[in-house]
Amino acid sequence: MSIRVGILGYGNLGRGVECAIRQNPDMELKAVFTRRAPETVKILTEGVPVYHVDEAEAKKDEIDVLILCGGSATDLPVQTPKYAQWFNVVDSFDTHAKIPEHFAAVDESAQKSGKVGIISVGWDPGMFSLNRLYAAACLPEGENYTFWGKGVSQGHSDAIRRIEGVKDARQYTIPVESALEAVRSGSSPELTTREKHTRECFVVAEEGADQAKIENEIKTMPNYFSDYDTTVHFITEEELKRDHNRLPHGGFVLRSGKTGWNKENHHIIEYSLKLDSNPEFTSSIIVAYARAAYKMNQEGQKGCKTVFDVAPAYLSAESGADLRKKYL
Amino acid sequence: MSIRVGILGYGNLGRGVECAIRQNPDMELKAVFTRRAPETVKILTEGVPVYHVDEAEAKKDEIDVLILCGGSATDLPVQTPKYAQWFNVVDSFDTHAKIPEHFAAVDESAQKSGKVGIISVGWDPGMFSLNRLYAAACLPEGENYTFWGKGVSQGHSDAIRRIEGVKDARQYTIPVESALEAVRSGSSPELTTREKHTRECFVVAEEGADQAKIENEIKTMPNYFSDYDTTVHFITEEELKRDHNRLPHGGFVLRSGKTGWNKENHHIIEYSLKLDSNPEFTSSIIVAYARAAYKMNQEGQKGCKTVFDVAPAYLSAESGADLRKKYL
Repeated sequence: MSIRVGILGYGNLGRGVECAIRQNPDMELKAVFTRRAPETVKILTEGVPVYHVDEAEAKKDEIDVLILCGGSATDLPVQTPKYAQWFNVVDSFDTHAKIPEHFAAVDESAQKSGKVGIISVGWDPGMFSLNRLYAAACLPEGENYTFWGKGVSQGHSDAIRRIEGVKDARQYTIPVESALEAVRSGSSPELTTREKHTRECFVVAEEGADQAKIENEIKTMPNYFSDYDTTVHFITEEELKRDHNRLPHGGFVLRSGKTGWNKENHHIIEYSLKLDSNPEFTSSIIVAYARAAYKMNQEGQKGCKTVFDVAPAYLSAESGADLRKKYL
Repeated sequence: MSIRVGILGYGNLGRGVECAIRQNPDMELKAVFTRRAPETVKILTEGVPVYHVDEAEAKKDEIDVLILCGGSATDLPVQTPKYAQWFNVVDSFDTHAKIPEHFAAVDESAQKSGKVGIISVGWDPGMFSLNRLYAAACLPEGENYTFWGKGVSQGHSDAIRRIEGVKDARQYTIPVESALEAVRSGSSPELTTREKHTRECFVVAEEGADQAKIENEIKTMPNYFSDYDTTVHFITEEELKRDHNRLPHGGFVLRSGKTGWNKENHHIIEYSLKLDSNPEFTSSIIVAYARAAYKMNQEGQKGCKTVFDVAPAYLSAESGADLRKKYL
């Protein structure tokens, strides 16, 4: 019997989850829930119904895990605790500072309902977090470094789009190669924000807009750009569509650490991702954790979990014996 | 209160475990057990007793986890099930083909005693295994690739030492850079043994030995060298001691996979290690899993586990809330 999955929210992430389910033969897409008029939402999988979110609760006995594909700013803080009343749930909540309160809210709801809620799943938070933790546990004396990119930052692209005179924009976060090399060399450098990443912006200006003013507004924007070396290119709408229509991303997690009685031996652990599609890769991880949520709940576990609380074997459809044979 | 650790077997690995315990303030070395005459074994930690292995059982109430630092060929198949009768245990059993029977033997013993036994801990098997599993779960349609090196293979060095006329030897396993690049490019190449690694040997010959004969015996040795491009250098004993006295190692685990409705997007996951000391890094991982064995047993878990069965949070001394704050 397949694990019956529901998707709540059908944007880039929801569509990615739909694609990922197709790659996992032990899972089955059972329904998509949307806040839009269901008949206006066209999904890829034939024969699967689209319902209004208000109908989700009524489907609770037909769905083993509900994957929440909303945004972290306003959707998930409400949705994850709400739907954990009725479903095992997985989300990709990524507002770092608010994880403690989100965890507490989901835990309260899932403890009451006896369901499992896995939050903050994806690659960062997610796979990168796991690598930071494993590396720190394996090399207690050392430093962790995280670099992002090269990739499109949607938050930074949105920030540029909000500037007056900007029609559209794409922002790439780029790790500084020399900083990466310094870490790999084992010198454990202390790196400022500016030394770790640069930012490159491709901007379509409205006709007649003051480009110098836009460029200055981008480069001096606090939090987003002022602490970075930022390059701004003005391009046409056609160029943006032709050359910047994908959502690649990636990055690096490194740990530089020492062992030995006198700390005489040095080690570097490096994990990196090179992704054509940020939302599809994120979705693919979420689907593996949806399997874990279901399996853990079947064993009687409940409450809020993160990737740190999930034994790796739960992510796979294969038996323990097969995993040991194939991967150990 | 600290976790009280015992070490059984005091070679490179045992000494590495001793060093690693010193880097983990929540752990304490309680005793070392040896098959040698205890008074002949000098350890690094002041005030810690060395006992004969026969005394181990009598110390079972003073030790929370016993780390087994013997070899996979003959020591661990006997020791791990035996000591799991009395202790939570961790080993680094790495004879891949025999893992199923080792797992079964340790599980039987640990289920009976109510202890936890974690087997096959280190970096391969160990961290590399975890990366193969996580990557496969996150990208179900794809290929895993494992490369080892550059590093000293002790098994291959030993094989050379057994050749007549060889006084000493060191063998390095070296990944082929062009094969690594082909995998990173996303082309999912099919690679033969010869295409993935080369082998470089530094040999000290006995005086008057036939070097051409030795070189030929190395290069044609089945399983060890005949499937590889092998280079043999004859050097002096002094050169071997000066230039090849360490045990560096490392390697790469990559997954190349696709996502999307029509598999149109490609992703590369890469994990790599660059280690000055293979035994010390292995030991450091083992100590983190010793903590996990203790914590899992405190929660009532028992039986044989591998790295696949251990939720990452167990490896750390920090609380769940702190882990989420620092690493998520």
